[in-house]
Amino acid sequence: MWKLRALKKFPFGGLYKNKEETKISLIGAPLDLTNSHAPGTYLAPEAIRRIAESLEWYSLLYEGDFSENGIYDEGDLVLFPGKVRENIDLISESLLDIKEEKRIPFMLGGEHTVTLASSKLLDEDTLLVVFDAHFDLRDEYLNSNITHATVMRRIVDNFEPKNLLFIGTRAVSQEELDFVKKNQIEYITSRRIWLYGISEFARNIERKLEKFGKIYVSIDIDAVDPGYAPGVSTPEPLGIDPHMFFGLLDPLVNEKLIGLDIVEVNPIRDAGEATSALAAKIVIESAIKLNKIYNKR
Amino acid sequence: MWKLRALKKFPFGGLYKNKEETKISLIGAPLDLTNSHAPGTYLAPEAIRRIAESLEWYSLLYEGDFSENGIYDEGDLVLFPGKVRENIDLISESLLDIKEEKRIPFMLGGEHTVTLASSKLLDEDTLLVVFDAHFDLRDEYLNSNITHATVMRRIVDNFEPKNLLFIGTRAVSQEELDFVKKNQIEYITSRRIWLYGISEFARNIERKLEKFGKIYVSIDIDAVDPGYAPGVSTPEPLGIDPHMFFGLLDPLVNEKLIGLDIVEVNPIRDAGEATSALAAKIVIESAIKLNKIYNKR
Amino acid sequence: MWKLRALKKFPFGGLYKNKEETKISLIGAPLDLTNSHAPGTYLAPEAIRRIAESLEWYSLLYEGDFSENGIYDEGDLVLFPGKVRENIDLISESLLDIKEEKRIPFMLGGEHTVTLASSKLLDEDTLLVVFDAHFDLRDEYLNSNITHATVMRRIVDNFEPKNLLFIGTRAVSQEELDFVKKNQIEYITSRRIWLYGISEFARNIERKLEKFGKIYVSIDIDAVDPGYAPGVSTPEPLGIDPHMFFGLLDPLVNEKLIGLDIVEVNPIRDAGEATSALAAKIVIESAIKLNKIYNKR
Amino acid sequence: MWKLRALKKFPFGGLYKNKEETKISLIGAPLDLTNSHAPGTYLAPEAIRRIAESLEWYSLLYEGDFSENGIYDEGDLVLFPGKVRENIDLISESLLDIKEEKRIPFMLGGEHTVTLASSKLLDEDTLLVVFDAHFDLRDEYLNSNITHATVMRRIVDNFEPKNLLFIGTRAVSQEELDFVKKNQIEYITSRRIWLYGISEFARNIERKLEKFGKIYVSIDIDAVDPGYAPGVSTPEPLGIDPHMFFGLLDPLVNEKLIGLDIVEVNPIRDAGEATSALAAKIVIESAIKLNKIYNKR
Amino acid sequence: MWKLRALKKFPFGGLYKNKEETKISLIGAPLDLTNSHAPGTYLAPEAIRRIAESLEWYSLLYEGDFSENGIYDEGDLVLFPGKVRENIDLISESLLDIKEEKRIPFMLGGEHTVTLASSKLLDEDTLLVVFDAHFDLRDEYLNSNITHATVMRRIVDNFEPKNLLFIGTRAVSQEELDFVKKNQIEYITSRRIWLYGISEFARNIERKLEKFGKIYVSIDIDAVDPGYAPGVSTPEPLGIDPHMFFGLLDPLVNEKLIGLDIVEVNPIRDAGEATSALAAKIVIESAIKLNKIYNKR
Amino acid sequence: MWKLRALKKFPFGGLYKNKEETKISLIGAPLDLTNSHAPGTYLAPEAIRRIAESLEWYSLLYEGDFSENGIYDEGDLVLFPGKVRENIDLISESLLDIKEEKRIPFMLGGEHTVTLASSKLLDEDTLLVVFDAHFDLRDEYLNSNITHATVMRRIVDNFEPKNLLFIGTRAVSQEELDFVKKNQIEYITSRRIWLYGISEFARNIERKLEKFGKIYVSIDIDAVDPGYAPGVSTPEPLGIDPHMFFGLLDPLVNEKLIGLDIVEVNPIRDAGEATSALAAKIVIESAIKLNKIYNKR
Ligand SMILES: [Mn+2]
Ligand SMILES: [Mn+2]
Ligand SMILES: [Mn+2]
Ligand SMILES: [Mn+2]
Ligand SMILES: [Mn+2]
Ligand SMILES: [Mn+2]
Ligand SMILES: [Mn+2]
Ligand SMILES: [Mn+2]
Ligand SMILES: [Mn+2]
Ligand SMILES: [Mn+2]
Ligand SMILES: [Mn+2]
Ligand SMILES: [Mn+2]
Repeated sequence: MWKLRALKKFPFGGLYKNKEETKISLIGAPLDLTNSHAPGTYLAPEAIRRIAESLEWYSLLYEGDFSENGIYDEGDLVLFPGKVRENIDLISESLLDIKEEKRIPFMLGGEHTVTLASSKLLDEDTLLVVFDAHFDLRDEYLNSNITHATVMRRIVDNFEPKNLLFIGTRAVSQEELDFVKKNQIEYITSRRIWLYGISEFARNIERKLEKFGKIYVSIDIDAVDPGYAPGVSTPEPLGIDPHMFFGLLDPLVNEKLIGLDIVEVNPIRDAGEATSALAAKIVIESAIKLNKIYNKR
Repeated sequence: MWKLRALKKFPFGGLYKNKEETKISLIGAPLDLTNSHAPGTYLAPEAIRRIAESLEWYSLLYEGDFSENGIYDEGDLVLFPGKVRENIDLISESLLDIKEEKRIPFMLGGEHTVTLASSKLLDEDTLLVVFDAHFDLRDEYLNSNITHATVMRRIVDNFEPKNLLFIGTRAVSQEELDFVKKNQIEYITSRRIWLYGISEFARNIERKLEKFGKIYVSIDIDAVDPGYAPGVSTPEPLGIDPHMFFGLLDPLVNEKLIGLDIVEVNPIRDAGEATSALAAKIVIESAIKLNKIYNKR
Repeated sequence: MWKLRALKKFPFGGLYKNKEETKISLIGAPLDLTNSHAPGTYLAPEAIRRIAESLEWYSLLYEGDFSENGIYDEGDLVLFPGKVRENIDLISESLLDIKEEKRIPFMLGGEHTVTLASSKLLDEDTLLVVFDAHFDLRDEYLNSNITHATVMRRIVDNFEPKNLLFIGTRAVSQEELDFVKKNQIEYITSRRIWLYGISEFARNIERKLEKFGKIYVSIDIDAVDPGYAPGVSTPEPLGIDPHMFFGLLDPLVNEKLIGLDIVEVNPIRDAGEATSALAAKIVIESAIKLNKIYNKR
Repeated sequence: MWKLRALKKFPFGGLYKNKEETKISLIGAPLDLTNSHAPGTYLAPEAIRRIAESLEWYSLLYEGDFSENGIYDEGDLVLFPGKVRENIDLISESLLDIKEEKRIPFMLGGEHTVTLASSKLLDEDTLLVVFDAHFDLRDEYLNSNITHATVMRRIVDNFEPKNLLFIGTRAVSQEELDFVKKNQIEYITSRRIWLYGISEFARNIERKLEKFGKIYVSIDIDAVDPGYAPGVSTPEPLGIDPHMFFGLLDPLVNEKLIGLDIVEVNPIRDAGEATSALAAKIVIESAIKLNKIYNKR
Repeated sequence: MWKLRALKKFPFGGLYKNKEETKISLIGAPLDLTNSHAPGTYLAPEAIRRIAESLEWYSLLYEGDFSENGIYDEGDLVLFPGKVRENIDLISESLLDIKEEKRIPFMLGGEHTVTLASSKLLDEDTLLVVFDAHFDLRDEYLNSNITHATVMRRIVDNFEPKNLLFIGTRAVSQEELDFVKKNQIEYITSRRIWLYGISEFARNIERKLEKFGKIYVSIDIDAVDPGYAPGVSTPEPLGIDPHMFFGLLDPLVNEKLIGLDIVEVNPIRDAGEATSALAAKIVIESAIKLNKIYNKR
Repeated sequence: MWKLRALKKFPFGGLYKNKEETKISLIGAPLDLTNSHAPGTYLAPEAIRRIAESLEWYSLLYEGDFSENGIYDEGDLVLFPGKVRENIDLISESLLDIKEEKRIPFMLGGEHTVTLASSKLLDEDTLLVVFDAHFDLRDEYLNSNITHATVMRRIVDNFEPKNLLFIGTRAVSQEELDFVKKNQIEYITSRRIWLYGISEFARNIERKLEKFGKIYVSIDIDAVDPGYAPGVSTPEPLGIDPHMFFGLLDPLVNEKLIGLDIVEVNPIRDAGEATSALAAKIVIESAIKLNKIYNKR
């Protein structure tokens, strides 16, 4: 029974909710094994839960209150020390359990590698939208093939490349770019977003969505500029502005959404908890919008 | 005599000035009692004074030099440990003493609660402009009624709500929003500022000012985006850009200004003293503009 | 022989390159003697080299890969403890040695004072472009005349003021402004860049470049807004956005470029290494563009 | 019902225990209102709980295992922002509730002021042993009379001075020393402990214990030398060594013990969590000894 | 060829030495995968190398100068991200290569798990002395069996328990203690060292050494009290004093020594680099003593 | 007039005293130019003054109260940026001015180099006692001859070596040791103090004092073990315990004392302000003892 695999923590925002009140399950996956420049993402679930207490819970945009339905906080998965593959399997099973209960998982990483666990949720009708400064599409990284730098490549091993959309791209390798072009993977660079604004891109996204019945959103917080999100392991300059980020996220949060993750938040390197607050805000705003959708039904 | 209540500190920017040279009195009010997530604002007056030494003192915008007239630094109030009400009274008396000397107080918090002390300076002919991510209009917060989260409500207990203008709003509770609507309090969200730019809002502010003989400005530094001002206790994403902030502050700094406070700067959580520098810059630019106005006379 | 004066370090980005592969020589000049508010720039060369490992090396803008030609990392100069003049001479000799080998120095400070050493590279046909929040044009600073606050004045002692262009200006003294006006030195304030965008300024720069056969670029990282670059000793609010910064740097990086320095990065005060990453990105992007130019020939 | 006043947290050491397994109740009292030099003790309960996970749980000294009976973690009291008196009352009621259930409270501060709440547990048959660098016996501190610097004086207002024993004393005011002498309060300075070792003092303590039926132990962690316990708000050099501290604590932990508190741990100022670890170790060792005593019965 | 596996770094203390000058090879093994409370040991080799520049190099005790023969710094092993077993094998091969060259490896961790790689150097004639607060003798830890908490158990899987000596023990589990007793493993607790001083224990160690032809010393820096060595991942109070630590290390450093490691230094959690300095001091003093022994021959 | 050279700061401990009340003048000399490993001593005078507010002011040892006579705080010298020699001269003049007023200077560094300025106070009847882990007796350090590593050698250039006594020695170079032996300079290693305790050494010091009419004490805080004083630029393990330090300082503080300095405190690297507190304690205890001596007269 998967519940045994998770350790109950002080819940997100200090808000105790029952499963019945919301379709959203928050699950922490503090995997932090393959970044040797600056570990610290293992602290993210706790940091995000904690700062959420200090944020306000009414959404001026979605005109709803987070405290009404909130999220159900499953706690953090108890990971195996030093084992990547085993942990990905563990996380996968948990996500599948959540799916089986017809609930929508919001996963808090940990490193981006945890998104590999989500690939079990994806099928050919799913659009996978990845906010990230990077592609994470290397085939191998320092002789390892399941890492934060290869995670999207591992996903594409069993997933249609054309179902992928990258947003915020700016830091790539030649190998990755060749792969992207060869496989006709779509990406929107942060430079183009800065140059042209978000309106057109938001429209494009909406158009693309029409072709898919499901959406999964993976948010590597380093998509946002390190000026706003310094708490990351690999700060890449020239990112996207949070106002624009939320503008691009908005069309993706709707009844098609089957899951979402927020990864690579590194509280050790943060300034004033700004990055954790950004992550908590994503949870709150998305949950309010989704809860309203499901309550109307 | 109020001077006994303040402890002289190394003055703002290291600049020793006599009272005669300027109408502005700087006073530190390091009250830091009601934020249990992240205290630290008690350090702000000292941090702001210190970083001011490293900033340049000529204003390209107002074409004047801060070192000419500067400000008179009264030092920091010696507060009673663990007493909110008593400290608000103490601060009030000091502000009234400054007013009595026909001087303009620039108060450095401390938490936003210190603005309650300023309410003694306000009358029906005063426009109270509050830069803040929040409303601070709760009636009660964790069973206490004088806190950083309720301070504006306490002010409104004895002040006409329509004389209030909030700028930078983005983090509210349902209760506060209901109160604001019921009392027709005007607010400009940071989202609208981001969407439309400041020109129109600056004109609106100017129009509104015409109806009032006096202005008091309270600046909760968390109005600014945590990307630029990470040194705050409650970082709320999606704030306003400093260029825009100064554009909106400009029309408020004129001969009608009877007082100004800068609150919620938390040096413990800052990055590179950027938030303290922003606060010091507000003091310097505003003082230069005001000193020029009063010297011309 | 100058090579004796430099201590080999773990190279920039961990990338070992031979001199033959590139015309660019990276040299660290960790001088940190005249800033008494917040030393720390002595740590910059090491921090920038280290974070470069975590950045990606393909440039989407210049369509080239840093790992192909890279830079040749000369290591760090071993400075004399507590001696400004002697160290400037030492750095000058090193830069002249690099010039003699027909190579282009990319110097990593240290404080801005190191640019005085570069003045040996300049002649009347050289445009000196300085990105900086400040002018650094005081004649004396606390009774010393070779400091981070007077370095540009010392350069102008033997250099035509009209060959100077400041970009990002916002923090000046009256004395400096008078000097600038009297000597018709051109400057572009960060406020104008924010108000009008970069297109027109980029064109102006290109027009100005036509008159000169050589360019030297000195980048005081505090030109960038402290929101994006908090790791500086004197954070001045209201700076330029990194997207705009790179837009203005682009026209300056071409076959006329004879040298470039990045100074005032202070890793102690940084958040999430964002400022060091920005500096490393400048090196990478500029090197890719230059290497492509020289390889085509 | 007092349970409503406490918020369940992730339990001490991550060890979920039922009330039946142990007589000890851990309760967090994160009061942090009267220290204006360096707040931070509000973070102590969470930090101590967390580091306890990393400590080992078998006691070589008492030959028992903490995981067997452990402690029951009641969570943290939800305090009123900015109210000292009200919070002391709240804490008192909670402690009395615990006493009523015939349980032994282990309270984690917060500032030393919380011990005033414990005075409700004391009677004339109780020996109050206070480990502290200070006496905290001032009558008033900056015009306030319930503070971390006056807490023992407030206790003595209603408690027999001769029932007090201070250990670790080294930082006193003339006023306090006069009071101590006048009231024949016993104290053991850290200097004498350093000079003579603990054997004789431990014997003295045992002799003194014979006269009392009950013991309450209050541990201001600053009794320990700041070399070992840097995470305190007022580091006083020349304290006691942890080995000696545990040697002096040992005779006090027995069936007479009616309560214990550990206060003034300030995680913000700690090094490597050493101070939090020391506090957690006190809880673990004392619980093991007590649980064994009560299980034997 | 193993040299390909190591990346040359700026050498220990900045001292470039040839292999011929000394029999000692320093090798960094920054493995940091199985501690999820507080990673950071991956930074230790670089931190220890760097602080060594600031220490003096003459040993008053051994009357020799480190700069004379020094050590040969092989650099750091390039580890596979997220792979424990593979990395242990990689480290083993490197240590065997060093052994093959008849050199003595001084390994800098990384977590204690790296000592498992050293077990390839051990045979029945080797005494393995482990300075550690812990036994690290669990059979499994959170479902993993190669971790910092199980490393000694994995070694004992293929090594005679009676060849083990633990020094500094104070934090154990019941399971470990049972195992130790059953297997008659010798250990000296830090408490006994504190109570009785080191003279007798040093004599015991010397006596024990007589039975063995070889010694390997593994130093988990948490053996030392966290007051002196706060930069560790699991600070256990009541450790040993550095003066005593060096007194107990001295008899172990002689011609029988076949290898030594220093592990669990965590620079992120250090205070004033004191823990890194302690590690560097161990390298310097031990190298001086050994170099003198081998030079005399 | 020298007073112009000093900038008044918020006084030591917040205690405003007139010159008449005490013979002791505190002067800050925040020189921080020659340590390139870890600058930060420039912050020491401010940090020491500030923490002094949190310490208690009654001395149990000397039975006197610091607040009675205290010290007169002259403020901090305004140093020339980047100039060693000039600053030493400036400091010298200030010390001579203080001497001329028949006052006793207590100087707070800054780096140890400032003690060179004190050499103007010394004559052949003066014993110079230096607490230090190091000798600072190199003739040259990285081609500079006035640095923190050569300061004692510069003093000895014009001072009788036999009038020197080093206490706490443990980190030396071969060159220094040779010089010490050749010049018969006396030193007491920290190792001998640890081995034998302080009684005998204190007696030796007293005997030595008899031969001199004057004493100057220079305290490089790194004499103390980095466990207790981590806030230093060059942490050397195996130092002296603070209890022992004060025991050895005591015989030196008497009517022969003509000056004292406390140097190398580096607040950036401190833990919980423990090192600054130690420095402040030295000022307080020494001032109480001296004030009592001079008041009795
Ligand atoms: Mn990613
Ligand atoms: Mn990424
Ligand atoms: Mn507010
Ligand atoms: Mn606010
Ligand atoms: Mn500059
Ligand atoms: Mn600048
Ligand atoms: Mn206390
Ligand atoms: Mn205390
Ligand atoms: Mn271990
Ligand atoms: Mn251990
Ligand atoms: Mn020294
Ligand atoms: Mn020293």
